Formats: sequence, C-alpha cells, structure tokens
Amino acid sequence: MESHAGLAATPRALPYYVAFSQLLGLIAVATTGAWLGLYRGGIAWQGVLQFNVHPLCMVIGLIFLQGDALLVYRVFRNETKRTTKVLHGLLHVFAFIIALVGLVAVFDYHRKKGYADLYSLHSWCGILAFVLYLVQWLVGFGFFLFPGASFSLRSRYRPQHIFFGATIFLLAVGTALLGLKEALLFKLGAKYSTFEPEGVLANMLGLLLVGFGVTVLYILTRADWKRPPQAEEQALSMDFKTLTEGDSPSSQ
Amino acid sequence: MESHAGLAATPRALPYYVAFSQLLGLIAVATTGAWLGLYRGGIAWQGVLQFNVHPLCMVIGLIFLQGDALLVYRVFRNETKRTTKVLHGLLHVFAFIIALVGLVAVFDYHRKKGYADLYSLHSWCGILAFVLYLVQWLVGFGFFLFPGASFSLRSRYRPQHIFFGATIFLLAVGTALLGLKEALLFKLGAKYSTFEPEGVLANMLGLLLVGFGVTVLYILTRADWKRPPQAEEQALSMDFKTLTEGDSPSSQ
Repeated sequence: MESHAGLAATPRALPYYVAFSQLLGLIAVATTGAWLGLYRGGIAWQGVLQFNVHPLCMVIGLIFLQGDALLVYRVFRNETKRTTKVLHGLLHVFAFIIALVGLVAVFDYHRKKGYADLYSLHSWCGILAFVLYLVQWLVGFGFFLFPGASFSLRSRYRPQHIFFGATIFLLAVGTALLGLKEALLFKLGAKYSTFEPEGVLANMLGLLLVGFGVTVLYILTRADWKRPPQAEEQALSMDFKTLTEGDSPSSQ
Repeated sequence: MESHAGLAATPRALPYYVAFSQLLGLIAVATTGAWLGLYRGGIAWQGVLQFNVHPLCMVIGLIFLQGDALLVYRVFRNETKRTTKVLHGLLHVFAFIIALVGLVAVFDYHRKKGYADLYSLHSWCGILAFVLYLVQWLVGFGFFLFPGASFSLRSRYRPQHIFFGATIFLLAVGTALLGLKEALLFKLGAKYSTFEPEGVLANMLGLLLVGFGVTVLYILTRADWKRPPQAEEQALSMDFKTLTEGDSPSSQ
C-alpha cells in the first residue's frame, strides 16, 4: 500500500461509532442524574445526600471521561502525536480528580454514619480499579510523556499500556454495575422483584453503561481504525531524534 | 521475515500464562463449590438446593469452559486449522449445554417458589449474554464450519467474531459478579458489612473470576502470541481450494 504524506482519510464508519459512543455515554450520565434526582433526593455534600456524589462522580469520571480518554488516538488522527498524548493524559487527570471526589464522598459518608469500609465486592473491585488507574497513569506518564524513555522501551510498553488501560476501564464499568445493584438491593429489597420504576430505570442505566463500554472497546480494538502509521512514524522518529540528540522535544 | 514450513516455536512465556489461567479458573470453580457446600447446603435438583445448581453451572460453563474455548487457537498452534476449529466449537457446545442446565435450574426454582423472573440487572445481563452466546455460536458455525462461506467473507467476519466472543465472555464474568453480590445481599443483608466469612470468601471468588477473565483476555489479545501465520495460511488456502473446487474439506 502507498503511504501518503498528506492528511490520512478518516475511516468512513468511525465518526458514526464515536457519535454513538458519546450518545450512550451522555445518556448514561443523564440517567445517573435522573436516578439520583428522582429516587434518591438529589445531591449535596452535607447529610445523607453526600452518598449520591459517589455514583455521579464515578460515572462521569471513571466511566465517561476515562472511556473518552481511550478514544483520543482514534478521534484525533492527524494532530501531532505530542498534542494527542497531552490530551489523553489530561482527560485521564480530569477523570482521576472527579473519581477522587467520588471516593472521598463515600468514605466521608461512611465515617459520619459509622459504617464499615471496604467490606463488599463492589468496594474491593472499586479500590482495585482506582489504584490500578493511578499506577497506570504514573507509569504511562513515565514512559510516554517524560522525555527519558527510549524508543524501544516505549514500543515494548505500548501494547501493555493499551491492554491494562482497557482492562481498568472495563473493571470500572463492572464495579459500577455492582454498586448499582448494591444500592438497589439495600433500598428496594424484595420490592426489586415487583418491577418498581426505580429498579427498571437502574437496570436500564446498567445496560447503558455496558453499551458504552462495549462501543468504546470496539472503536479501540478495531485494527483498521488505529491511528494511521504515517503520523505515528513521524512522531516516533521525532522521539528518536530527540533521544539521540539528548534534548527534550520542543513544544509547538 | 522468513516463513518456516516446519513446526512454529511456541512463545516462551505463553505456557506459563496458560497454566496460570487454568490455575485461576480451577480455583474459581473449586471456590464456587466450596461456597455452595460450606454456606449454602450443597447442591440438588430437588427443593431449595436446586438454586445452587445455577451458580455452579454458570461458573463451569459460561466462564471456565467459555474462557478455555477462546484459548484454543493460542494453545493448539500446530494442529490443522480444522481440528482446532472443531475443538473450539465443541468446547463452546459443552459450555452452552452446562449453562442451559444452570438456566433451567434457576427458572424452575423460581417457578416452584412463585418468584418473579427477569427483574434484576443480573438477570437482564445474564439473559443477554446467553442469547448473544447462542447467536455467536450459530453465526460462527455458519461462517467457519459450514463449508459454504467464501474465503473473503470469513476474513471479514473473523475480527467481528473475535471481538464479540471476547465481549460475551466478559459480560458473562460481569454477570457472575452481579449474581454473587445478589446472593450475598439477599442472605447476609447488613451482616455483609461485618466481614462475615461467607462474604469474604465470595468476594475472593469475585476477584478470582475477574483474574481469570483478565488472564484469558491477555493471552487472547497479545499480538505476538497469535497462531502462527504459516499454519493459518495453509488452512486458508485449503479452504480457498475447497471452495473453488466446490468440495467440502476431507476429514483427517
């Protein structure tokens, strides 16, 4: 196949899949808000409503924004590798900060109420996802944004970074489903089986989160939708030049 | 790169990862048995113990055997493509039959007890996974085992088959975690937060299932562990020859 020096064409179906993922993600965030507003009394940092900060922050941060950060390299196909990297890293920082607020909310709520921490499968999976997310960000920063790592180290680490990024994202989606189920069973109990409106809405939210996760993963893993090699090669050779010249890449 | 006519070498680390996945999978099955035996009164087709057939069958069928079926092409690297395909299809048939028994067990139990069906997020995800699993098997059979599909159709469908196979497997793992959580909350209720032995064991079972899922996915997606192209090319050209000659492949 020929390699073109100019802009690479975006695969025809890709924008529709990206739009669909955003639609699912935004509907999931809106449904989380609707669920908390309609059936859980809304959101506040004080009192019992502090708990509700937790699901909202986690769906926005660890699911919607984390998912979008994974899509950056598929959406921004012709920007410089460096710009795309910085955007990818920044989106993950925003996601992490919002998730941290969500985490503080639930621990603070538990402390005020005298509830035990970290006893449930939801909490075990959640704390695992959160810690792995931080580790992945730090290691990713060290390899890809910090100017020290060599070209060959980066190439060897890249597939691991992608695999573990996708795994952490999926773990976050699974953890959200566990939390949703926990919230439903604690409140509804046996009434869950009578198809209460809250139960049906929350089940639909669960399916929306699964749908968002699957769509993001599909876009991420489709081989012919990867960022075009010509742009990547340019950037890699720039990194390599930078390394051999012992200088850090100049900002543009 | 040169292509070798002889046997391709197995990647050095692959057998260790496969062994680790089997260890995790078998420990998960054993832990499911231990949980049901120690805390749920064991297993029977009659009476209240019929419910316990459901988690055991699902963990053996939709998780352990389905996961192993995904690994067939990584483990059997030098057998003919046809033999490997048949083994892949057969493992999925066993997994499906065992899952069907698990599904019948829970519907039958609900019917006898007068419980509602399909109200929970666990059941929605589970029925989705089960139906998609059947559809994936039928479509896969139509494309890859039935002799009619052309070489180019098979090549275009293959990445979709792999993506949706991995997705259904992950959905099965997520559904199992939801079911586990449901079983714990229904029985333990608030006692779950006092680190009851049953709760801790079941949480560990959840993490084992996650670990098995991640390890299988890692082996499946690692690019340099894919089945060597020479074996695949031979088989593809055999398929192509078969097609152009209008004959079905002879069994060996």
